Amino acid sequence: MAVLSRLGVNGDRLMGWINRLAKVGRQPNGDICRLAFTQEDLQARYLVQQWMMEAGLTVRTDAAGNLIGTYAGLLDGVPALATGSHIDTVPSGGAYDGVLGVLAGIEVVKTLQDNQVRLKHPLEVIVFTDEESSMVGARSMAGLVPESPADLKLRDGLNITDCLEAIGGNWEAIKTAKRGRDRIAAFVELHVEQGAVLERAGKEIGVVQGIVGMRRSKITILGQANHAGTTPMDMRQDALVAAAQVVLAVRDIALVMPGDPVATVGYLTVAPNAANIVPGQVELTVDIRDLSQGCMDAMQARLEAELRAIATATDTTISTELILFVPPSPATDRIQATIAAVCEDLHLSSISMPSRAGHDAMEMGRITDMGMIFVPSQQGLSHSGREYTPPEQCIQGANVLLQTFLRLDEMY
Amino acid sequence: MAVLSRLGVNGDRLMGWINRLAKVGRQPNGDICRLAFTQEDLQARYLVQQWMMEAGLTVRTDAAGNLIGTYAGLLDGVPALATGSHIDTVPSGGAYDGVLGVLAGIEVVKTLQDNQVRLKHPLEVIVFTDEESSMVGARSMAGLVPESPADLKLRDGLNITDCLEAIGGNWEAIKTAKRGRDRIAAFVELHVEQGAVLERAGKEIGVVQGIVGMRRSKITILGQANHAGTTPMDMRQDALVAAAQVVLAVRDIALVMPGDPVATVGYLTVAPNAANIVPGQVELTVDIRDLSQGCMDAMQARLEAELRAIATATDTTISTELILFVPPSPATDRIQATIAAVCEDLHLSSISMPSRAGHDAMEMGRITDMGMIFVPSQQGLSHSGREYTPPEQCIQGANVLLQTFLRLDEMY
Repeated sequence: MAVLSRLGVNGDRLMGWINRLAKVGRQPNGDICRLAFTQEDLQARYLVQQWMMEAGLTVRTDAAGNLIGTYAGLLDGVPALATGSHIDTVPSGGAYDGVLGVLAGIEVVKTLQDNQVRLKHPLEVIVFTDEESSMVGARSMAGLVPESPADLKLRDGLNITDCLEAIGGNWEAIKTAKRGRDRIAAFVELHVEQGAVLERAGKEIGVVQGIVGMRRSKITILGQANHAGTTPMDMRQDALVAAAQVVLAVRDIALVMPGDPVATVGYLTVAPNAANIVPGQVELTVDIRDLSQGCMDAMQARLEAELRAIATATDTTISTELILFVPPSPATDRIQATIAAVCEDLHLSSISMPSRAGHDAMEMGRITDMGMIFVPSQQGLSHSGREYTPPEQCIQGANVLLQTFLRLDEMY
Repeated sequence: MAVLSRLGVNGDRLMGWINRLAKVGRQPNGDICRLAFTQEDLQARYLVQQWMMEAGLTVRTDAAGNLIGTYAGLLDGVPALATGSHIDTVPSGGAYDGVLGVLAGIEVVKTLQDNQVRLKHPLEVIVFTDEESSMVGARSMAGLVPESPADLKLRDGLNITDCLEAIGGNWEAIKTAKRGRDRIAAFVELHVEQGAVLERAGKEIGVVQGIVGMRRSKITILGQANHAGTTPMDMRQDALVAAAQVVLAVRDIALVMPGDPVATVGYLTVAPNAANIVPGQVELTVDIRDLSQGCMDAMQARLEAELRAIATATDTTISTELILFVPPSPATDRIQATIAAVCEDLHLSSISMPSRAGHDAMEMGRITDMGMIFVPSQQGLSHSGREYTPPEQCIQGANVLLQTFLRLDEMY
């Protein structure tokens, strides 16, 4: 039997799979369009299922359409360790987002099989359904699928019953897809960073501290539309002057908080929006993200105090409406520590960092221990055909995933 | 012969004319729609022309369609004194905007005629063409009509040749409408304020210091659109954060300058304008108005310095494009002094104030001595069927106009 700490994945095989999958949905401009539930999604699932079986995984599809491959373990009656990600893309996606995590998972199993290694725990590799839109796969597994299909963020014109049927799932039985800690002891996802933090820091691996939570509000500012010529400055109730103060307050709140929270006004519209009329109404969105629920709450409280002060100072009325709230999903400490220790042993440079984009691991973290491994995205580009992570870094990520599972197998 | 300083207009007759004209173009909701060159405009001109003739005015229409009534003076070969305004409205206009100035002018002449008073100078009452849109009437008289009809701000779908023909004008001969100081020695316009300054100050008459100039620019801010989750605050080039600083800088520039300049960002659009994307581009307009060209120049210089500082601080590129410039049109000092003295003698309270909206007097001020008299607009409302000035205040304005011409007749 091989010395486990020296096991390494077959990089050529992994990159071969990644490059083969990149042909499915490839557009003339280089982007990849492989939307969930489409023919391209099915074509990709078909290929991945074959590779799973070749790697010795036993394959099934749950009611949410999640494709689950299981590499049997030595012990009976113990929960699985699990990895995985997604193979659907945004309309103009790249070759690595999601795909790397799925194929590296299969490669980890194939490496174990090639070396006649079995873990004590079963090891699952999961292809989650529709990560890029509804996240129905991961949310079903976490027992968080909404009662009404209307509350699913499905692409326009789709029907969830038909969608799931097309990929072997079953909306009627969706609750059977739920898993728990008794079934999955730990979940670790490898993913490209989709940002430029690692590249800027010159690090090879990101040890993810958790997936940030998000609070998105719509803010409506009511002033008084008025003639921009005849209304003296001190008689104005200018909704845009108030909005400008809100935009800067939102930025300042993120800057003064500890850690690295982000806060963004990405959407803003003015009415009546004419050069010669003092703005009477502005609508804008505020999007706050951080790893710490406490920090998010503090930012929200600060924002509300600022809004009250701005409304008074500008003689406007400001109302807020919560439109989206996703609590943060912290990574389990001992999984973070394990990943960091693996990096050190493999002589790979690493840093701890939050994930500021959503991932399947976010939902899995709500039901069991969770960790994530990031590898760099060149120039931070993602959701684009120009998304790129060099083969060396893909393979480094897969090796960290492999060694992490070998250690978790001893810990759980 | 009457004691001139005790002469007063016939208020009932004036209000009768105003109320009669308000029926032309009256909509079910109370607004008045009497767009220039329409059948309603012609109907109103027809009525006004009759009232002019009844008041002893000799009537003609110039090439720009301006309806000009002349009350002959005692002296030959001297330039006229002139008053007037407009009878066209915006699509949802009121009963006083423009109309008061025209009908008070006719009433002034009718009062002189009733009292067998003749001035030394001819006195003209002018109905200017299309004040609410192209200002082609006043601009032609000032010799400022553009060579190309495309440069006239005519309502969509109209043809200036046809428009002028419909009201007795002639585009081919438009240059013959030009007047000069040799033909008109002084022009004084009575108008409703269209703002709430007089009402707030509790004053009966506004002695207009001049009509403010306007500089309107389009500002384009280029940042970098980016993921609102994965882009740390210190890596952003947020065009909306830059724009917010511009909005506040524009307001602050107006607040710190001497006098009462106004500065407005009325139009602002964000791209891509999505809650989860750091804004990459913002376009906005800056509209600066003041009575003093020097003040406007200083504001512009200050704005440009602020834009440079904001671009540097936010790592964005900011470009500006001038889209409209109208120089200020100051009222003649001795006409302002005369109006103020008349108010004092009539025991009417008055304040000096700029006009921040455009008027026919603005263009007349470019060719001869000019003054304007404001009466209050209830709640500052204008361009609405709810526009209202009580009869007492309309009549006070007409009496100030009458006494002002009696004095100017001695001064010119």
